[in-house]
Amino acid sequence: MESLRRKTGMLRASGLRLGIGDDCAIFRPSAREDLLLTTDLLIENVHFEHHTHTGRDVGYKALARGLSDIAAMGGAPRFCLVSLAAGAGASERWIRAFFAGLLELAKQTRTALAGGDMARAKQTTCDIVVCGAVPRGRALRRDGARPGDSIYVSGLLGGSALGLETRRGLAWRRHKRPEPRLRLGIFLRERVRASASMDVSDGLSLDLRRLCLASGVSAHIEAAPRFPGASLEQALHGGEDYELLFTAPPRASVPSQFRGLALHRIGIIRKGRPGSVFLNGRRLPALGYDHFRNP
Amino acid sequence: MESLRRKTGMLRASGLRLGIGDDCAIFRPSAREDLLLTTDLLIENVHFEHHTHTGRDVGYKALARGLSDIAAMGGAPRFCLVSLAAGAGASERWIRAFFAGLLELAKQTRTALAGGDMARAKQTTCDIVVCGAVPRGRALRRDGARPGDSIYVSGLLGGSALGLETRRGLAWRRHKRPEPRLRLGIFLRERVRASASMDVSDGLSLDLRRLCLASGVSAHIEAAPRFPGASLEQALHGGEDYELLFTAPPRASVPSQFRGLALHRIGIIRKGRPGSVFLNGRRLPALGYDHFRNP
Repeated sequence: MESLRRKTGMLRASGLRLGIGDDCAIFRPSAREDLLLTTDLLIENVHFEHHTHTGRDVGYKALARGLSDIAAMGGAPRFCLVSLAAGAGASERWIRAFFAGLLELAKQTRTALAGGDMARAKQTTCDIVVCGAVPRGRALRRDGARPGDSIYVSGLLGGSALGLETRRGLAWRRHKRPEPRLRLGIFLRERVRASASMDVSDGLSLDLRRLCLASGVSAHIEAAPRFPGASLEQALHGGEDYELLFTAPPRASVPSQFRGLALHRIGIIRKGRPGSVFLNGRRLPALGYDHFRNP
Repeated sequence: MESLRRKTGMLRASGLRLGIGDDCAIFRPSAREDLLLTTDLLIENVHFEHHTHTGRDVGYKALARGLSDIAAMGGAPRFCLVSLAAGAGASERWIRAFFAGLLELAKQTRTALAGGDMARAKQTTCDIVVCGAVPRGRALRRDGARPGDSIYVSGLLGGSALGLETRRGLAWRRHKRPEPRLRLGIFLRERVRASASMDVSDGLSLDLRRLCLASGVSAHIEAAPRFPGASLEQALHGGEDYELLFTAPPRASVPSQFRGLALHRIGIIRKGRPGSVFLNGRRLPALGYDHFRNP
């Protein structure tokens, strides 16, 4: 961590008083903000493989996943903490590449690397915690969708699942380098005043079900915008697209795109059995990725 | 995580606005406090073994290690985030026991479980992030030791190393259930006004070296208080005792014990090559546990 300490000096976000090198990092919060905290595991042979993913890709993606959760709640990232259990496939060079990829995205998104832990292990496992901030009481949550709200999704779905299958082209890049929708999240909070929001990490069918469960409503959708080449299955149930799924009241003004990223209206929220999702009137099973259901 | 969500309701520490169940947890910080953040890995066959450590022990220890870092800086815990990659040895029952052990200590120390992540893996790996708080600008750091300060350590050292060797009695219990010195940390900050502090996690020789490096000083010690049955080697270089190592200016009043826990004066800080440590006048090598030096 010693060499990282120097590299992260320039990244000290406003608020971070002490980074890597003591028992704890010290962060001075603003009295006007709520803090958002999320943690995500990235595991060898579950989320990535050493022979197909470079260290740089894995480091980038580890942070991107956490940032996507911050984006989903309309937050701005502040800092992250990274724990890396380095397996046999993670040479010193791989570990350097891992942190280079992570710091590349950290710099782009003004996320300070506040601390972490490293150890040797059999299987490479990375856990990342990202802390973001929103004005007090203004975080976008999953539980605010109301009957009559429209349902939207950003961008295109199924690309990551397609990339995992074909390991080629834009889809493979989408799988390895998902783009956290940070600016969109802030736009949804400040301008659109979305009623609910979350990121599509485990597949639209499962994530929309979760949003509906949290809000106590049902969803009726007509479509899922497909990544070029992706099947309907991949668009509905494929995970790791990291687009934003959100709802907005009928009176809200939602543009058809935001900075070149399409915002598709895919359906409507209705009263009904909490968590139930319908595609063109037929019940859509939640087949997205659940670690403990499909081990 | 669904069943955990209910169990942690009662634990919502002041400040936690939303716990498990959304993309992020939401924490409302106090304007009078700095936040402390620490992350720690606990890995199967590195830090514990499924056949000797129960799930309850592992869950307890995972949190205890993080809390020890908060204690070292004089903080009070607020919340934690837990990521668990569950290997083949971690049955559903084991996972329940893991969280029972973790929540037992969380309840004792008023630490809310704010969120986490779970996945299946080959090797069981737990990463825990603990967030604590101190009054602004008052955290105890490693870098404040000055020539002339006395060096102290709480309790007895080498017990955890002895326990790992013998797997018996109080030493084995000390290894499996270390006690984070939270009250002592607050006492050192508020009353003693310690000049530097850290926890002894990787062995006195290595941790004292780190404190001296951070402070730009050297240390001269005469003794290390030994756990009954522990060798001098174990007391000097054995890790995982989680006692507090601290320094205090000559004018400070340090009692010989705090709530039944002995506070031993073991030496003095001097000018000299930063990081050098001497035992009875002879250079003490830093043989404590370093994952990347002794893999």
